[in-house]
Amino acid sequence: MHLAVSLNIAAADGQDVLDFGQISAFVRNLEAAGVDMVIISDSLTSGEPSTSPFEATTLLAALATVTEKIGLVASASTLAHQPYNLARRFASLDIISHGRVGWNATLRQSPLEAANFSRPAGIPNDDFRRRAEEFIGIVQGLWRGWDADALLFDKAGGRFHDARKMHVLDHKGEFFAVRGPLNIARSPQDMPVLAMSGLAGADLDFAAGVADVIAIEEPSPEGARATCDDLKKRVLTAGRTPDALKVLTTVFAPDLTVARLETWLSAESCDGLIFAFPADLSAINGFTDRIVPELRRRNSDRSAYYADTTLRAHLGLGDGGAK
Amino acid sequence: MHLAVSLNIAAADGQDVLDFGQISAFVRNLEAAGVDMVIISDSLTSGEPSTSPFEATTLLAALATVTEKIGLVASASTLAHQPYNLARRFASLDIISHGRVGWNATLRQSPLEAANFSRPAGIPNDDFRRRAEEFIGIVQGLWRGWDADALLFDKAGGRFHDARKMHVLDHKGEFFAVRGPLNIARSPQDMPVLAMSGLAGADLDFAAGVADVIAIEEPSPEGARATCDDLKKRVLTAGRTPDALKVLTTVFAPDLTVARLETWLSAESCDGLIFAFPADLSAINGFTDRIVPELRRRNSDRSAYYADTTLRAHLGLGDGGAK
Repeated sequence: MHLAVSLNIAAADGQDVLDFGQISAFVRNLEAAGVDMVIISDSLTSGEPSTSPFEATTLLAALATVTEKIGLVASASTLAHQPYNLARRFASLDIISHGRVGWNATLRQSPLEAANFSRPAGIPNDDFRRRAEEFIGIVQGLWRGWDADALLFDKAGGRFHDARKMHVLDHKGEFFAVRGPLNIARSPQDMPVLAMSGLAGADLDFAAGVADVIAIEEPSPEGARATCDDLKKRVLTAGRTPDALKVLTTVFAPDLTVARLETWLSAESCDGLIFAFPADLSAINGFTDRIVPELRRRNSDRSAYYADTTLRAHLGLGDGGAK
Repeated sequence: MHLAVSLNIAAADGQDVLDFGQISAFVRNLEAAGVDMVIISDSLTSGEPSTSPFEATTLLAALATVTEKIGLVASASTLAHQPYNLARRFASLDIISHGRVGWNATLRQSPLEAANFSRPAGIPNDDFRRRAEEFIGIVQGLWRGWDADALLFDKAGGRFHDARKMHVLDHKGEFFAVRGPLNIARSPQDMPVLAMSGLAGADLDFAAGVADVIAIEEPSPEGARATCDDLKKRVLTAGRTPDALKVLTTVFAPDLTVARLETWLSAESCDGLIFAFPADLSAINGFTDRIVPELRRRNSDRSAYYADTTLRAHLGLGDGGAK
């Protein structure tokens, strides 16, 4: 059973902003408890004044230097970024973290976000969906830009490779034209983990074909089981093995008691759980005090698990890498 | 006299790629020698196959956790990014590094870069210049989005502030529409340092009005002096004090001997020097062996200098901050 924590770093008006010391102490605590990955949110979620202490990808790079095992996933929307930049930044994070990085692609557009990217009216919904799918295809295509034999040897982490085995993508689509190649060293996972959340019904078939992790929200283990089964069927239809996608159910950590945790852990409603947090130190401290010791007890021997060096490997995902 | 090092992290075909351990050892060495800042390049410079080990902003975030004093500057072009993202990422880096970050705005477009951003034909030169100027204005406007009294107090680095003192920018220009505000905590420098390099004649008046640091290339100290004097006149014309801009002359480190270093340091051709490096470990080791001890001898007591907490302060720049 996989465990993840999703941390909303944007504090609401009047709330104290988390500092790097607090966030890194929390993430190290999660790592010690055997949590597979932490997912950093990074979006405007409402019209209320709110403040992030950090932008998610720069925060992940800093967290990578103070942790060793835990997976590090940053959210980033397809509206706010260029696919070439996003692919390049995550490939760089994958090198800095020694293969522990993932991208959480958020597939909803927010009007407040659009207003910061020269799109005051946003993008019509159908266009937005086709654009997001094209975007994700480009990112994965750029990540696949290295031949499998491009890596010559790994001399004490030097990871020398042959730059001639890097390929142009030469994508020309409806919304983007991206030549490539990525112009960055081959990363340890080849393909950083692709997570998706906040999916609408119309996104599910696409997501089942390309995602490594999908986060769902269901109030009960039974509902989660049904949604999970539906997604796994779509994964098969997309020509992948069911294990190529991990479906994790989001539970909201401030409401969590040890008894409720027990219900969820016993139900095995799918591949695992995501504990979702607001940027609120009291919620974090409560989780650390009450729930983390229970997780640590259950995960007391994670050594074999963590022997896998990359996030992709320790989630039991296929290599997804260079074809 | 200010000293900087510019490091090109993209290795040419066949060359070994620097790893994070090598780069961080080098940067810590520069810090110990009293170098003010390291500037990380981040662009395609030619049609030759080349490979970066990292994307510059994620590398800076990781370097921020292993250094304490040295300024950290990343290059990023106005073609490859959205101004809102770029402003937000550098504000985040400024928080992670406790006020040591700068943006090196490169004002030339490269056709290879344009081809990765859905602009296969690039942008006409005059448009590119107006677009770059609008871009930089938006970034600085977003950085200025906090009222001067927004910071309530700094409790052990918590830096609590009042989110109501964050302002929308509401920019609607020829190339961009950006509402703002930045949705990120107020950063220690308010305005990360703005460096510019590779300027054409037509860029100089604009740069003199907005930049904190300009890098020039001149083969002799006399030529550098003349260019520097010209720039300082333009700074006055722009209504700023000459000290608001630091002009640094680029010298190419692989060619540098202790004797040539002596010539440049004695000439005081302007505000300081930038040593420019290829991503070549032998050049870096040569500099570390021969030149760094000399710099360390000259800068043996930098304690007073480094008592200033931010890069902006230790370069002797104005606060550039919230108006």
